[in-house]
Parts: sequence; C-alpha cells; structure tokens
Amino acid sequence: MQIITLLTDFGLKDPYVGIMKGVILSINPNTTIIDITHNVSPQDIREGAFLMKEYYPYFKSGTIHVAVIDPTVGGERRPIIFCKDEHFFVGPDNGMFSHIIEANSEIYEIKNSDFMLKNISSTFHGRDIFAPAAAYLASGIHPSVFGPKVVNPVYLADIFPDIINGVLTGEVVMFDRFGNAVTNIDSEIFNDFINANPFEIHIGSITFSSLNKSYYEQNFTCLINSSGYIEFGCYKGSFSREAGIKKKDIVRVGLL
Amino acid sequence: MQIITLLTDFGLKDPYVGIMKGVILSINPNTTIIDITHNVSPQDIREGAFLMKEYYPYFKSGTIHVAVIDPTVGGERRPIIFCKDEHFFVGPDNGMFSHIIEANSEIYEIKNSDFMLKNISSTFHGRDIFAPAAAYLASGIHPSVFGPKVVNPVYLADIFPDIINGVLTGEVVMFDRFGNAVTNIDSEIFNDFINANPFEIHIGSITFSSLNKSYYEQNFTCLINSSGYIEFGCYKGSFSREAGIKKKDIVRVGLL
Amino acid sequence: MQIITLLTDFGLKDPYVGIMKGVILSINPNTTIIDITHNVSPQDIREGAFLMKEYYPYFKSGTIHVAVIDPTVGGERRPIIFCKDEHFFVGPDNGMFSHIIEANSEIYEIKNSDFMLKNISSTFHGRDIFAPAAAYLASGIHPSVFGPKVVNPVYLADIFPDIINGVLTGEVVMFDRFGNAVTNIDSEIFNDFINANPFEIHIGSITFSSLNKSYYEQNFTCLINSSGYIEFGCYKGSFSREAGIKKKDIVRVGLL
Repeated sequence: MQIITLLTDFGLKDPYVGIMKGVILSINPNTTIIDITHNVSPQDIREGAFLMKEYYPYFKSGTIHVAVIDPTVGGERRPIIFCKDEHFFVGPDNGMFSHIIEANSEIYEIKNSDFMLKNISSTFHGRDIFAPAAAYLASGIHPSVFGPKVVNPVYLADIFPDIINGVLTGEVVMFDRFGNAVTNIDSEIFNDFINANPFEIHIGSITFSSLNKSYYEQNFTCLINSSGYIEFGCYKGSFSREAGIKKKDIVRVGLL
Repeated sequence: MQIITLLTDFGLKDPYVGIMKGVILSINPNTTIIDITHNVSPQDIREGAFLMKEYYPYFKSGTIHVAVIDPTVGGERRPIIFCKDEHFFVGPDNGMFSHIIEANSEIYEIKNSDFMLKNISSTFHGRDIFAPAAAYLASGIHPSVFGPKVVNPVYLADIFPDIINGVLTGEVVMFDRFGNAVTNIDSEIFNDFINANPFEIHIGSITFSSLNKSYYEQNFTCLINSSGYIEFGCYKGSFSREAGIKKKDIVRVGLL
Repeated sequence: MQIITLLTDFGLKDPYVGIMKGVILSINPNTTIIDITHNVSPQDIREGAFLMKEYYPYFKSGTIHVAVIDPTVGGERRPIIFCKDEHFFVGPDNGMFSHIIEANSEIYEIKNSDFMLKNISSTFHGRDIFAPAAAYLASGIHPSVFGPKVVNPVYLADIFPDIINGVLTGEVVMFDRFGNAVTNIDSEIFNDFINANPFEIHIGSITFSSLNKSYYEQNFTCLINSSGYIEFGCYKGSFSREAGIKKKDIVRVGLL
C-alpha cells in the first residue's frame, strides 16, 4: 500500500476531502490515505507551508504528500509535482513548498491531461488535478511524465527569522488547538544566537528569561516545542487568549 | 477491499463515528472506510440529501454509502438499503435519498435481525443497524436478503428550483467552510432558462449580471461551482457573513 | 491488518495526529488506524476516561487503543501499556484508564528505548513514545518487553455516582455534539436504585418523572442513551444551552 497524505484548508464540513479520496481510490485502490489536517486557516499558504516541513519527515520514503491551499485556483498558477528526500510533493505552485524546494529540486508542471479527470473545473483542482496526480504517482508514473520542468517556482517572502539591530526577530506563525503560539524561530537559530549567554524573549507585554521544559511548569511558558520551534503556552488555558497574541505578532530575542 | 463511505451529523467530538467503524471492521475487516463529513448541520436531512448526490459519483462501482442524518431514530421510520448505478446506499427512509432514488429503484427495508447488532437501542441505529448492514453488504449479502421491499419511500418536498412568474427561483442549500453559499440551481437548469440571453441573478441585496470563473476575480463572486451549482463567494472572506445571507434565502434569476 | 484506535485532545487543526499516524505506519505498515475522536475537551482526563470505556468494546479482539490526554507530559507520570479482555491499551498513567484497569491487570511501564523514537521530546509523547509502542505492539511485541511492571496505577477520584442521604447522585460528564448532557449514572445503577418505584430525576431546575425512549418525543427528554447512561436531550436544540446546564452539574434521582 502506498501512503498519500492530504493537507488542505477545505475544512471538515464539506464533502471536498471525501471526494478527493473517492477520486484517488477510483484510480488506485492500493493506497492508504492519511489526513494531516484540513483546517489550515483558509487560504493561508504561509501556515500550510510551515506545517508541511513539520510533518513530512515522520512518514516513510515514497510517501506522496498532497497540499491544497489554493486561493488562486483557476488562474495562472501552475500545478506542480516534485521529489525530495524520497518523498513526493503535489500541489499548487504558490509558495506552498517554500520550506521544502531546494535549488536543485527537479519540479514538473502537471500538464498531461491523461493524468487528470476528464472535465477540469476552475475551482476544485484538488479533485480534478491533484488527487489524480497523486493516484497516478502512487501507481509508479514518474514525475517527469506529468509535464515540463518548472525552473522558477514561487517562494514566499520573509518566512525566516532575522537579526535586526542585534535582536533575533521572528513571528508567530500559527496557534495550535490549545492556543499555544508557535513561532518560526527554531532551536538551532536560537541557540546559535544566544550562544549560551543570558537572554530575554519578548512577546506582547510578556518577557521570559529562561526556557521551560513542559507546559505544566507555570502559567505562561516558553519552550522549544516538539518540532524544535520556540512556542508560548498557558497551562490549562489558551496563550492566544490570555496573553492577547495574534498570528504574525513579532517575537524578539535579545542578549542581556 | 470494499469501500464504505460515511455521511452523518454526528460531529467529530463524540465517539459515535469511531464506534460505527469498530462495528464495521469487527464484522468485515476487508473494508476501507472513508469519511465524507460528519458535520452535516444537525438533523438537516435536506443538506445531507443535497451533499449525497454530489459526492457519490466520485467513488467507484460497488461502493457502499452509509448516510445517518436521523432525527426520528427510534420511531416508525424504516431503515433502508438500495442500489443505484452500481452504488449501494444505506440509511433511514426519511427523505435522505430524495435526490438519488428513482421510480424503478428496488428498495429494501432492513428488517432481518441476523444482520444487526444483538441489542438495538432506540437512539443509535448508525451503530446497531446501518453499520452492520454496510459490513454485511460488503461481504456480498444481496440487498433483498435484508428485508421486504419498500414501495413508498419518503421524499423531501421542494428540493428543486422552480420558475415562478417567469423568474427562476431557487434557494441557498448550504454554506461551505469558506462561507460560500451553495444554491440548488444547477448549470443545466440555469442555461436552459437564460438560453444565452442577458440575465440578472439576485441574492439578498446583491445583483450579478454575469458569472465569474474563479473566486479571486473580485470581492463578491457568482459562479458555477465545481459540482455544477450556482454558488456565491467572497474573496478572502465569508460571503455568508459579508453579504448577510442565511440558509434557505431565496435566489432569483431573471431575464432582462 | 492490525487495528489501532486513537483518542486524543489534540484537535483537528494541528498536524499532531497525522504525525502520529506517520510514525505508526513507518514502523508497521500493516495497521489500520481508526480515529475515535481528537476533540476530547483539552486536558480533560475525566472525559477521556469515560469515553474510552464506551467505545473500546465495539472493536474486535486484539485491537490496540492509544489514548493521549496528557496535561503533565514531560513530568514524572509514566507511559503505560496493558491488556484487558484481549484489547491492548497504551497511554499516560494519569487516570486515563480508571474505568478499565482492574485489580489483577498486568500493567507495564514503557521504558525500553528500543521501542521509542530516537529523540524523546518533553512535550509530544504521543509521537515519541505512544505511537511507536502501538506500532511495535501491533508487530507482536509482548507488553512485558516494554518495561517493568506497574503496581500502583493512578486512578481518578469520584468518577462513579453515589447514594447520598437516600438520593442517587451523579454528574454530567460530557456533552455530545447535539448538546445532549451525558451523565455517569448507568441504567443498571439506576434500575437497582429505583427498583420499579416511582421516581423523580432532577437536573438544574428541570424534573422528569419518567424516561423517554427517543429524542423526538418532547422538547426536553431524559432517556437511557445508546451506551446505557442517563442522558438529557432537547429535540431540535441543545439541552446544554436551552436548560443552562454545564459539565459537572449534579444530577439527582429521588424516590417518591
């Protein structure tokens, strides 16, 4: 059985995800389809791109990852397919894969209509293009057969933290279910920056001068989360709500 | 592996859906169970019926579709089973299959207790009757073995658009996750009615005199959605909220 | 295919559940993973424990049930594994299994790092410890191989109803999707207590002097639900909202 993962902003109210699964299983029944989440914030490519790099390494080689956060579906943006670290990725060329595509990635546009549904709508390429592409990939079709090479894939701007006036500056990229605020500052960048010196981390009006290990240690916590990113939490509460923090709020790390 | 799809209004907070899957897999492990959605608006048979005709054609022949929107569970309404286009359907006889049942459909009441759980509750036939029926169907039991023929299945009233005083009149049947308003006016009825003449589409206080192709073309959009129905959207926003539209609001198409 | 069920409070917005599935399928692809729910109220061990006893019997022998409601992850609480009624259970030793563990249950601490991911985070044992344990269990590893015996598992207090001054007294343990209020008073305790005598059931300011059979019989209903517990409902509405009832509100059954 070939594994296909799905990441979308389609939500779980509508039949869209079920329809994609119907299309995949009709083309290739020998697949196991795993939902990552369908609750990416609507049309938030940035959040989807961040999530994607987090989960894909936990799947085995050969897994096909389909990501459909696609606000400009029906326009000029290309559907693409590529391979990295023996994982396959399928989705729109809109920056969704900014964290994953490398300079030497061989990316192909999905253009060969043999590998699409017969009628292509202008609003649901998850069903008409991406699901079939994943199913055919799972059947052993090589990415290069889907269409021409793409040499200028779209990248999102400003997705990495930066050092501004001596201050390591990042942002809140998403909130998890508990209201924990996940930042784009990973432990490697953080540790390189502080270099074992005393530090302060600022978010909103709150300051931390040390890292916690677990969410239950105190009311507000700041820790390296399970994916290696600085994250803010609130024990038995929502950090988002209790601390009044929103997505894209700035996080600053300064040396003392 | 036989595919079984599930459509319910059980939500995703409770263990009901998981329990149905446990029952199915205990009776017949050779099944792949696909969730369509469990977030049909509570007890909204009309919405469920509309969704069902949308997703089932994307599954392959032999798929078993179980639908449990069942506000009168425990009463006189019959559990039924039937086949259409080589697809099987299982659920309550409450109008849920109004868009699918045809005049010559051979419908059977599920009455044979050999194909039910031992104890039948009065509140959870999804577990006690419908899940087992699907599992036994997947094992090759013919629908006619489940019980007697049903000759007068329940139909919902007024589910199709109508021409009233020269105006094609339909309604909003549901909102998708993005707040797009889906109507019951399909492209065939629409095109037959306008017959290539200039037209106006009215919803709430908004008027459209042409169709869009994609959601990102302008703020409010009106397009034929991926399932072939007229749908209203709002780019990067919720049409429902921005335009103040509710389910069952009237949609009118007039000729100029 | 070995069945593994998942019960968590991770929600469906984040990739955590998908990551657990990736870990399981990477270790043991011959598994079918079934979601029970990931919407247990955040950190509510009590609710999770109650749900667990409700759904597990509907799965077949040999099923592995993973439960991760784990507010003190990263602390001293032990990860455990045990078998009951030919079902396997994996999760934190925090009371989660209070309804299932018996005096003679052979419980093992998961301590053998051969059966964990290489790097153990302090915040996501679902991924690092519980998912791998389930996958290895499914491969036939015996529970005793995972670590030493646990002789003093944690139990939750006051999870059963009690007779106080001649009144059978229980509580609302959870609300289902429809807003129905589920209590911890099961039909056996209830029937033993009333012993066929006239009774009154009190919740908030509402009194029932008989049980209903179905939710559609009247506006407010009180019935034995499909799992055998006293439950309060509201036809076409939410009992929680309409009757102003909250979790942990007291339910009293008195004899007349």
